[in-house]
Amino acid sequence: MSDRILDIIGGPGDLKCLTVEELDILAGEIREEIVSVTAQKGGHLASSLGTVEIICALYSLLDAPPDKIVFDVGHQAYAHKLVTGRLKEFSSLRCYGGISGFCRPGESPFDVHYSGHASDSLSIASGLAKARDLKGGTERVVALIGDASLAGGMAFEALNQIGHDQTRMIIVLNDNEMSISHNVGALMKHFGYMRASSQYRNTRDSLQEMLERRGRVGKGIANFGRNVKESMKHFVIPRSMIFEQLGILCTAPIDGHDIAALRETFKNVMDTQGPVLVHVVTKKGAGYAPAEAFPERFHGVGPFDIKTGELKKPKASAPTYTEVFSQAMLAEASVNDDIVALTAAMKDGTGLTEFAERFPERFVDVGIAEEHALGMASGLAIGGKKPVVAIYSTFMQRAIDQLIVDNALPGLDLVLCLDRAGLVGDDGPTHHGVFDLAYARMVPHLQVLAPSDEAELVHALHTALALGGPFAIRYPRGTAEGVPLPEAAQVFKPGESRMVREGSDVAILAFGRMVKRATEAATLLEKDGIGARVVDMRWAKPLDADAIKAAASTQLVVTVEEGVLKGGVGEGVLEVLSNQQSQVRTLCLGIPDAFMPQGKVELLLRDCALDAEGIAAAIRARLGS
Amino acid sequence: MSDRILDIIGGPGDLKCLTVEELDILAGEIREEIVSVTAQKGGHLASSLGTVEIICALYSLLDAPPDKIVFDVGHQAYAHKLVTGRLKEFSSLRCYGGISGFCRPGESPFDVHYSGHASDSLSIASGLAKARDLKGGTERVVALIGDASLAGGMAFEALNQIGHDQTRMIIVLNDNEMSISHNVGALMKHFGYMRASSQYRNTRDSLQEMLERRGRVGKGIANFGRNVKESMKHFVIPRSMIFEQLGILCTAPIDGHDIAALRETFKNVMDTQGPVLVHVVTKKGAGYAPAEAFPERFHGVGPFDIKTGELKKPKASAPTYTEVFSQAMLAEASVNDDIVALTAAMKDGTGLTEFAERFPERFVDVGIAEEHALGMASGLAIGGKKPVVAIYSTFMQRAIDQLIVDNALPGLDLVLCLDRAGLVGDDGPTHHGVFDLAYARMVPHLQVLAPSDEAELVHALHTALALGGPFAIRYPRGTAEGVPLPEAAQVFKPGESRMVREGSDVAILAFGRMVKRATEAATLLEKDGIGARVVDMRWAKPLDADAIKAAASTQLVVTVEEGVLKGGVGEGVLEVLSNQQSQVRTLCLGIPDAFMPQGKVELLLRDCALDAEGIAAAIRARLGS
Repeated sequence: MSDRILDIIGGPGDLKCLTVEELDILAGEIREEIVSVTAQKGGHLASSLGTVEIICALYSLLDAPPDKIVFDVGHQAYAHKLVTGRLKEFSSLRCYGGISGFCRPGESPFDVHYSGHASDSLSIASGLAKARDLKGGTERVVALIGDASLAGGMAFEALNQIGHDQTRMIIVLNDNEMSISHNVGALMKHFGYMRASSQYRNTRDSLQEMLERRGRVGKGIANFGRNVKESMKHFVIPRSMIFEQLGILCTAPIDGHDIAALRETFKNVMDTQGPVLVHVVTKKGAGYAPAEAFPERFHGVGPFDIKTGELKKPKASAPTYTEVFSQAMLAEASVNDDIVALTAAMKDGTGLTEFAERFPERFVDVGIAEEHALGMASGLAIGGKKPVVAIYSTFMQRAIDQLIVDNALPGLDLVLCLDRAGLVGDDGPTHHGVFDLAYARMVPHLQVLAPSDEAELVHALHTALALGGPFAIRYPRGTAEGVPLPEAAQVFKPGESRMVREGSDVAILAFGRMVKRATEAATLLEKDGIGARVVDMRWAKPLDADAIKAAASTQLVVTVEEGVLKGGVGEGVLEVLSNQQSQVRTLCLGIPDAFMPQGKVELLLRDCALDAEGIAAAIRARLGS
Repeated sequence: MSDRILDIIGGPGDLKCLTVEELDILAGEIREEIVSVTAQKGGHLASSLGTVEIICALYSLLDAPPDKIVFDVGHQAYAHKLVTGRLKEFSSLRCYGGISGFCRPGESPFDVHYSGHASDSLSIASGLAKARDLKGGTERVVALIGDASLAGGMAFEALNQIGHDQTRMIIVLNDNEMSISHNVGALMKHFGYMRASSQYRNTRDSLQEMLERRGRVGKGIANFGRNVKESMKHFVIPRSMIFEQLGILCTAPIDGHDIAALRETFKNVMDTQGPVLVHVVTKKGAGYAPAEAFPERFHGVGPFDIKTGELKKPKASAPTYTEVFSQAMLAEASVNDDIVALTAAMKDGTGLTEFAERFPERFVDVGIAEEHALGMASGLAIGGKKPVVAIYSTFMQRAIDQLIVDNALPGLDLVLCLDRAGLVGDDGPTHHGVFDLAYARMVPHLQVLAPSDEAELVHALHTALALGGPFAIRYPRGTAEGVPLPEAAQVFKPGESRMVREGSDVAILAFGRMVKRATEAATLLEKDGIGARVVDMRWAKPLDADAIKAAASTQLVVTVEEGVLKGGVGEGVLEVLSNQQSQVRTLCLGIPDAFMPQGKVELLLRDCALDAEGIAAAIRARLGS
């Protein structure tokens, strides 16, 4: 049927039987498969293309199982998925019920942990190694970590201990040279120095040549490897002093696309007692020219045309929330010199690219370092500035302590813009931003806004900057609601909600984009003769006690939020009702006490009964019972 | 009135007028004052004694304001408090309404930030420096950070950026040599290497001599400086390669108790463009022999006898919760080889000292690195072990993301023992463990136990280990309730509460040590003819739906928890009642939406209406209205 090597790979053990030439061919086949599937499904293309040869080389030497590879952020792991028995299912990548875009233990015994948040692989691997040593085992533990992830404090904490304990493990540093031009820290400069001071860049073979030498790369896929000028040779260079000073043996940088060289180095260090760091230099997007040329665009990408690399963007009915935030920030910053924008390695994702160009002095990218981002923002506020930290809701989980102690306790100015709040879709359980209402509500002094559409987001940002003190604004991923943007931004009155629809049978108190669903549900209920009021609560904290009191005059008070019910703002409404000594019936709708899977947001909302039909049905059932 | 220099110091600017000899005398006076007050009030003695000369030397050179010192964990800052206008109030240290044991911005303009959680000073300072540079200011920003705090990932994240941006600031590394013998990481080994490879230890002057040379040190205070054999000399040694490689200029280690030497070095680097790290070697507890001899005991200490250094322990009516946990862990570990205990630099504080001695292979101290602790614990669990992480409730705020993504999402075994949960007393707002019920409740898969006394704690630990999956057990600081300990530990049935007291007018659902207060309140209510049921809920998650349903048959369901109301478990009870379509009246008691100050726990509980009288009064009021 097929003459691909990939099709006969039943598990990673099969790679041990292949010659280096066959591994090269396999790498090419894997690369084609990855490009082909991500072109349809979207995904983390650039990172996964960069690690194909590393993964092939490792599995050709490891005994897996019991040997294990721990991936730091699993979007490097597509090749790993393809050689660990998931080729057939791979086309369901990132789909509802399909293969995860990250490692997921439930999916395969080869997926060691849920790898979605950066910088955790070394800790996980060190725990595995400790467990092994306690049991007297001999299996190998390998952690594969990108250079950007090493800037995260958690990774340093792990290195500090691994070096001290002399934990037997192999750390593969996937240094993809991205970071040095992208301003994310002194550690990256250090890597750059190591690369520059070596001679490994003196000889520049064409990667095209190299890929062709490896076999049938590019077959059937135009643009594969075209215009590629860069490759690398490895020479002995000064070892990384930082790692060595932490007690971690460190190799010279080697070419991460040269399987023979990778195998040679891995073989040398495979059974070293104590920790070894193998410094591998790769090219993000390697082997697919559009991704090599624009690795950031192909980091996390939607479906694209393989030939041209053009993204197949669905015709947008409206801007994204991120785009609206982006423009609102420019407008605010152009009239307020005190505004400083911070991001943790998500300049593009959070919509700060244009801000960084227009106001370079007032833009800070701290790298993958959310804790420091919040701490530095607090220092800026103490110094009289107005810090705006744009961060994904899920990654903000890394800096809750800093939010509490460094920022909220002294009541400093801060605008925390929590992008990707609520269900995020294809990235799945590690990335859903469903905890933010709960963790923000518990923090004294923190004011929390949940805009229901893009116009409200503009007002929310303006309100937070105008009123001062610590603020969190949470808004979803993706396309906004399509409402007109305001000509002038308003300042909300603290804790004041907005009546969207009158009704006296039921009152639906909705937060964020649930307002739209609630309004649709009210229309459905109207057909049954149920008059449902819909209130856009706007403020998750402080809550509008008057609106809640008024709601209690109906038969049923319903809260609808796109966040976990446990600790969520629905419970907050119940507490207000309790204080008001109301005995009205209540119904809280939100994300249940479970980790939601991946899949299109509308499917997930349906599963949580947070679409219009689900909301209406739940209300009908409660009224009828 | 007084012939002390200290008494005429109105502010840090006054130190600029003093000679080195006078600064030496002042340092001695400060040291006496610190020992004298902490002997009465307790406090962080050892750290604060170690930094006296650093602070005197710095303020003798800085122009403060506008120059600023940012303290990492403010328990180094007592000398700073004494020279910034707080001598008179200093005797109210750590008291209700008194001077904070840490830096507190509301207390003095010289206190830059709330410094209670380690490793944040560099981020705060870098933000201040950035704000200064944006404003075109020239003031100096100094961060004073201990070696142990540098192991925290947040500090590394900051260094990474400071080095890259070449932020103009001075980092004073207070290297007190504690850590190297205490197994907290490779970075410490590196510092040790630097110290050892220098010759600064070749000449050993008596500190006694040095202190006497400085003036009237020890006057009136016995045991001051006695038996002190160690001092240090500074020589030029190899610079710290780690810092230099991150782009941070680094001095050779200097004697942190030699004001002249400190001044000389500070003067040299004071106006360097870019970041400079001054490596200062100090002795924890310097100048007070008992603290030098037992610096860990004098880290955070209660009142003690100045002459002997003996702690004035109040006669304990019962063991502390920590002691009970300590013994329970030994019992569990002696019959279960899979148990591994982890701590983040709090071996003594969390009660793991004996465990570490008995089971050294199964004990891990990761240093101040909570994120890594949770990650490593997850790796241990993947490897088949039963990790028990003992951590203060407040410091667990640092690792909520790791709890969610690395541990709870895959449903791994973990027992998180949250010591110091609830109000902690004298340490104040940065240390109260009042958020844990809220942040634990929101995490799917996580089971949460709140034992009401020490016997329940023994059962809770046993239950968590027996049932498996992720567990959090939260218990308070200090003396337990004095109940007998069980001969055999039980396994609780998930979500099953325990009826403590019958009653049909009111049902009080209480959590943790609030059960005792609730029971006392019920006794008070009985006198008014109100029959109050008291239920020890045991489980904060899952909640006992049957007990809640039964409670709803009374006139009023009351929840009492020692945690924030917003997102707390009282709201969780309201949600259960909502699902049960109950319309019973409710009353949630807990910590209000504010940061609670420092002071004796009983005073703070009274302020929150969480003592027996407060609970009874609130119930009476609600019933009467």
